[in-house]
Amino acid sequence: MKEKLVGALMFGQSGGPSSVINASAAGVFTEALKHSDCITKVYGLAHGIRGLLDEDFYDIGQEDEKELLLLKNTPSSALGSVRYKLADPKKDDTDYKRMLEVFKKYNVRYFFYNGGNDSMDTCNKISKFMKKSGWDMRVMGVPKTIDNDLYGTDHCPGYASAAKYVATTMMELKLDATVYDTPMITVVEAMGRHAGWLTAASALACTKGLGPDLIYLPEVPFTTEKFLADVKAKFEANKGKVMICVSEGISDETGTLIAEKMNENVAKDSFGHVQLGGVGQMLANLCKDTFGCKTRGIEFSLMQRCGAHLASKVDVEEAFKSGAQAVKYAVAGRTDKMVVIKRDMTSGKYKGKMSAVPLKLAANTEQKIPQEWIINNGTMLSQAYIDYALPLIQGDCKAPLEDGLPRFARLKKVQAGKKN
Amino acid sequence: MKEKLVGALMFGQSGGPSSVINASAAGVFTEALKHSDCITKVYGLAHGIRGLLDEDFYDIGQEDEKELLLLKNTPSSALGSVRYKLADPKKDDTDYKRMLEVFKKYNVRYFFYNGGNDSMDTCNKISKFMKKSGWDMRVMGVPKTIDNDLYGTDHCPGYASAAKYVATTMMELKLDATVYDTPMITVVEAMGRHAGWLTAASALACTKGLGPDLIYLPEVPFTTEKFLADVKAKFEANKGKVMICVSEGISDETGTLIAEKMNENVAKDSFGHVQLGGVGQMLANLCKDTFGCKTRGIEFSLMQRCGAHLASKVDVEEAFKSGAQAVKYAVAGRTDKMVVIKRDMTSGKYKGKMSAVPLKLAANTEQKIPQEWIINNGTMLSQAYIDYALPLIQGDCKAPLEDGLPRFARLKKVQAGKKN
Repeated sequence: MKEKLVGALMFGQSGGPSSVINASAAGVFTEALKHSDCITKVYGLAHGIRGLLDEDFYDIGQEDEKELLLLKNTPSSALGSVRYKLADPKKDDTDYKRMLEVFKKYNVRYFFYNGGNDSMDTCNKISKFMKKSGWDMRVMGVPKTIDNDLYGTDHCPGYASAAKYVATTMMELKLDATVYDTPMITVVEAMGRHAGWLTAASALACTKGLGPDLIYLPEVPFTTEKFLADVKAKFEANKGKVMICVSEGISDETGTLIAEKMNENVAKDSFGHVQLGGVGQMLANLCKDTFGCKTRGIEFSLMQRCGAHLASKVDVEEAFKSGAQAVKYAVAGRTDKMVVIKRDMTSGKYKGKMSAVPLKLAANTEQKIPQEWIINNGTMLSQAYIDYALPLIQGDCKAPLEDGLPRFARLKKVQAGKKN
Repeated sequence: MKEKLVGALMFGQSGGPSSVINASAAGVFTEALKHSDCITKVYGLAHGIRGLLDEDFYDIGQEDEKELLLLKNTPSSALGSVRYKLADPKKDDTDYKRMLEVFKKYNVRYFFYNGGNDSMDTCNKISKFMKKSGWDMRVMGVPKTIDNDLYGTDHCPGYASAAKYVATTMMELKLDATVYDTPMITVVEAMGRHAGWLTAASALACTKGLGPDLIYLPEVPFTTEKFLADVKAKFEANKGKVMICVSEGISDETGTLIAEKMNENVAKDSFGHVQLGGVGQMLANLCKDTFGCKTRGIEFSLMQRCGAHLASKVDVEEAFKSGAQAVKYAVAGRTDKMVVIKRDMTSGKYKGKMSAVPLKLAANTEQKIPQEWIINNGTMLSQAYIDYALPLIQGDCKAPLEDGLPRFARLKKVQAGKKN
């Protein structure tokens, strides 16, 4: 236990929303408010780093506890998010100096940032700069990404709820798309630019006999020739009923996105200004041209990342705990770390345990699906993936109903900074 | 009470799936199995009328009761659906003669059909033909459509669950789409070719402050000029954040679909073979071209009609009851009717009561949103709509979880016909 550091805590949310990013906020806030001996104020940054630079932040101590707990089941980022890339401080340290100024003005000694790779990079840079400047503070990253590509953690808060959305909805879609006695090819597109974790989650539906026949991930180079051959085989085996799940990020051997390649062909027809649907719709169109049957392209779009009504209880609780744990670690003297989840199977059943890794490590590495988990000539996930993912989607945990609709948190957002 | 009619019951599902079409099946099956004194066999038709013509149907008496009850929370059509338009019997009575043959062969005295307008038309034609042929049978329609456009009923089983999906998801999307501090126009497309009931349901989210700013229905002629003017006003009032919900069926004054019109412009660019996204995506593109900001088109696609995990309890129970009531009516001697739901507000609170209307009436009329419920120059729904719809989406009712995923019904489907 290091010596007590007394001052304010600032927390920001960054990057794309998830169903449980606010659950982590709830964990940070409720835990921080318990430590009034060293955490004098708890601030929530409006739009992450943007709110820090603009002195735009809220006094969380003035929120009702009930509303803070409702954050656990409120999707998206209640404080507002941002995509702001900090410069290399060696080249341009303007932003860093401004942050130091704000930290000093409000005596901020705890800085917590919630997000994915980029946010951990931001967090890491801030931590290093403040250390160099001699400003004593504790910096913690709280992990968040539906993409599950953050290094150093068994899995990421946010992933399991999105995975549960994908698997559950896939089951429902399979029932719907196979209801007629006529051929039908359905191509469902899930998020994931570089890692196929979310698309892989559709394989969980296969455990109930209601999953896709074919799955395409960014981890496996994609060719339309092989794709059409795969579909043809399933088309013949399943009386024309084929269900496919593709990642938005599927690419060819050179790393070029299939969506871009197919869009290019479109652009050649002097039609550059029209933004076509995603790669799922494009592949559905290709199937229609090739097989002449009814096809449908479906995009899970934003629903997969904000569908908090389908959140996993395990995920909500881990997200909350990872926020609370960040506070505990920082109060105990740790800094420059990202909270991670370790898988504990000692009891024979899954248990998530909190731990921490250096921010630097989390910032610069990307976690993809192991190649050995991808089977059936690159079109399905193995039992090893199911064993990995299934424990994470257990249990329901959603907002209470009010008039039949979710009762999400309503924050007062009392301005505590001096917004420009 | 008419005299007892002894024979088999046949039940078929028709048209597009919904979250609760199987709940009606569960109602028909469990009630019918109680009346073994007059209903000697309960058959479920594979793919509706197709299964009748092909002698392809299942012996429901051999199913486990537990699985029949799980049907209440299993989306889509467990027996399989069909879109088969019967000929006018005066022009071609082949199909009708074939049906009579099957009815006689299996002594079918009860024929129940579950579906929307077209299915009630089918049901009506069959009823008339059998009466004319002297085959004593009781024919009942069980209402079903997410579109809510069926005449003679206060609302349709299937609508409320889809409406709950639309309203809940709209709230989540609104939180997601407004998370950054930059302009963003989101256009969400809901189903509904001729009636805007499902799109209207997005207005329910407004009661929680998380609804769309603008709603466009097929009931109001659409022009892109007015649309862009509406969006501009909201764009300026809301710091560039605009949320829009449009019906797939929005049309111009002449009744031409906007989707078709916009597609036509595309086709003119010698690009006829590419099937573009829906009208939501097209309008999002138009906004991008016009306002130069980030836009996103989102389609609720099949999810809105099969999202049984968001089913309304009121809807599931009414769907079940309407199936059971059809059996009760038929056993009591009624025929040639569709079961309907009447709104009973005598206690001050909503209560749905079962009743019946002639099939003919339901078959030939379409129920649209009353013009006086559409306000704000055709871009919003009034409180009268909210008062109408809100009682219908109350309560949750979904399948139990098994391994974190829904446990849907698994029928044995013991073949009872003599499939060709």
